Amino acid sequence: MDDNDDLKDLIRTIPDHPKPGILFRDISTLMLEGDAFASTIDRLADLLDNGKPDLIAGIEARGFVFASALAYKLGCGVLMLRKSGKLPGTIVSIEYALEYGTDMLEMHDDACGPGAKVVLVDDLIATGGTALAAVELLRGRGALIDQALFVIDLPELGGADRLRDLDVTSHALLSFAGE
Amino acid sequence: MDDNDDLKDLIRTIPDHPKPGILFRDISTLMLEGDAFASTIDRLADLLDNGKPDLIAGIEARGFVFASALAYKLGCGVLMLRKSGKLPGTIVSIEYALEYGTDMLEMHDDACGPGAKVVLVDDLIATGGTALAAVELLRGRGALIDQALFVIDLPELGGADRLRDLDVTSHALLSFAGE
Repeated sequence: MDDNDDLKDLIRTIPDHPKPGILFRDISTLMLEGDAFASTIDRLADLLDNGKPDLIAGIEARGFVFASALAYKLGCGVLMLRKSGKLPGTIVSIEYALEYGTDMLEMHDDACGPGAKVVLVDDLIATGGTALAAVELLRGRGALIDQALFVIDLPELGGADRLRDLDVTSHALLSFAGE
Repeated sequence: MDDNDDLKDLIRTIPDHPKPGILFRDISTLMLEGDAFASTIDRLADLLDNGKPDLIAGIEARGFVFASALAYKLGCGVLMLRKSGKLPGTIVSIEYALEYGTDMLEMHDDACGPGAKVVLVDDLIATGGTALAAVELLRGRGALIDQALFVIDLPELGGADRLRDLDVTSHALLSFAGE
């Protein structure tokens, strides 16, 4: 991970957000730097194995920022995984557990056909709850998904391990652990 | 506009969404086509005057998809204009009128400095309420903004005219009028 310290330095840490004791890693400060943003996309692309996917699936909303630039670079389509009630067409959805309560992820039911090669992208993986739900939702439509890309991993929260249990390899550029 | 009919054909129209009588222009079907998505970004870039901006400001959430790919292409940073309560740092916000009630747009107060050249990007302009609020919010931080890019314009709703009243030139690839 050390090779990406130039990018890590651009992540702003906001203490006690969204609640006391949490160090929030704010990626918006990296996005604002054009050279660093482009380099982030290029380095994410370098992490991919197995050739060009058909679709990059981005998780609303910060995930869209990295998913779409990566899709543009690779010549792939962008598949939006959205919060509840945002998509206009016929949707499929999955409910997943949060620390308190549940949340919902949705996609258009015709957004990908069986056998489509899909790579999942989000800005950050923590416990992996959203990413796991995304994999399950996509696979439910027949997508082939075995890789997920994140700018930031919080490895102590175990999300990458949980993805591995689903046979999805998690790649991340930056890791924040024990700090 | 006729030159972009290949892209227009990829926009799905959903009748009576979000309410009876509205023809919703669903851009997600264009995003899914890799070649068309890349071409959309390239053609948006070709619409820009006055050289490379410092920042591309995208409006949550579909606007992020086009803003970030364009920023990557141009080597610019991405500035997120978000709905209420989504940004972790110190924000500035603007309230604006909807057909019924009001909505809020927010940005980090340090996301751009005075004199930053900013181009606004969203997927669609209708009445322009959100776009006008975005221009006002950005100018309140000292940004120089005189161009806005949209994939779709609904000219009968007057948004581009309202932007012109603020000395912002609105460029759009596709226009849906009287259909």
